[in-house]
Amino acid sequence: MEDYRVIEVKRSIFEDNDADAERLRQALREENTFLVNIMSSPGAGKTTLLERTLEELGGSLKIGVMEADIDSDVDAKRMNDAGARAIQIHTGGMCHLDADMTRQGLKELGTKDLDLVFLENVGNLVCPAEFDTGASANVMLLSVPEGDDKPLKYPLMFQVSELVLINKTDVLPYFDFDMEACRAAILERNPAAAVIPVSAKTGEGIPEWCAWLKRRIQS
Amino acid sequence: MEDYRVIEVKRSIFEDNDADAERLRQALREENTFLVNIMSSPGAGKTTLLERTLEELGGSLKIGVMEADIDSDVDAKRMNDAGARAIQIHTGGMCHLDADMTRQGLKELGTKDLDLVFLENVGNLVCPAEFDTGASANVMLLSVPEGDDKPLKYPLMFQVSELVLINKTDVLPYFDFDMEACRAAILERNPAAAVIPVSAKTGEGIPEWCAWLKRRIQS
Repeated sequence: MEDYRVIEVKRSIFEDNDADAERLRQALREENTFLVNIMSSPGAGKTTLLERTLEELGGSLKIGVMEADIDSDVDAKRMNDAGARAIQIHTGGMCHLDADMTRQGLKELGTKDLDLVFLENVGNLVCPAEFDTGASANVMLLSVPEGDDKPLKYPLMFQVSELVLINKTDVLPYFDFDMEACRAAILERNPAAAVIPVSAKTGEGIPEWCAWLKRRIQS
Repeated sequence: MEDYRVIEVKRSIFEDNDADAERLRQALREENTFLVNIMSSPGAGKTTLLERTLEELGGSLKIGVMEADIDSDVDAKRMNDAGARAIQIHTGGMCHLDADMTRQGLKELGTKDLDLVFLENVGNLVCPAEFDTGASANVMLLSVPEGDDKPLKYPLMFQVSELVLINKTDVLPYFDFDMEACRAAILERNPAAAVIPVSAKTGEGIPEWCAWLKRRIQS
């Protein structure tokens, strides 16, 4: 049974996205809904991470998910199957979401009764970092196969993310990935960033990530 | 010894990028320089692929490389170390290159004596697909860890690429990646696409890729 909607969002009419994002963040705070913007490269494992997170937190929090994609609705289907209220946002070819596009998605999802909403942004390390979505927190997912040099190449993404999850630790033996070098490169870009290694596949690090989320929601 | 330059390219002054790209393609044809635009997600292995390719073809063809990145010049250094004439293009935060930005890079590189030039585009599956760089051929590199569903999610990238290399076949045993399903999804987006599985790490498929290149240059 498919119980999620697919919506096409329109380009924002607001010239000042930063101010608009601040308005959205304030509105969410007033209704006690915490919005997490999750960003990564294509295929870093955002959707699998969210499936695991829903398993872990779905019993204690009411959670919704907005899946943004250029095309396809396979991710919203997976979220729906995992028990979350989910919608698919089609960006009409655009490489990012801004605050007003996020608002359009939240309106369709319906957030008044939700404690936590995940926005799975378009898989892209460049453009999503440039647009404040109005989220309560930005979380970035880097995966082991991408390499430990990514903070050098995509500086803004690491600067705007308060938490970096390093996913796919289960395949660390098969890649030349230096966890400590990566952590140091992240902290060079953003000294305040938290870093948690995880494997959405095996569940390693998922309790630490969920504990971070709970602390952050309550703060 | 660092023997490559870093240049900052400016946004194009041409409104019609498609026409400008056609002019660049024609100019390159007249001087017998073949320009290959290589696109992929961050960390799919473009630079390692080019190192292997230089080993294989460097003896028979004069090759140059333009490395595009938001920041850092680690890739141009690697190309220079591998024996290619290389430059680093900084896009000033932009997520793609257009034809005029490519032309600025080619001018700095100097192409009159080169048979083959690789443009390593910004790691991104969205924006680079939207802008014709004027290249003689578009090649897309998908890596096994990203998953076999990427052609569903980033349709334009697969439509504009005449060859899809599927990299990191050495780690196929550790990922749920269905090569035949991926091939079928690519061909659904682009029935004319060629598909070659490769491992830039072990060298698997590199001779086939180089044979494809040589045929394409001569055609």
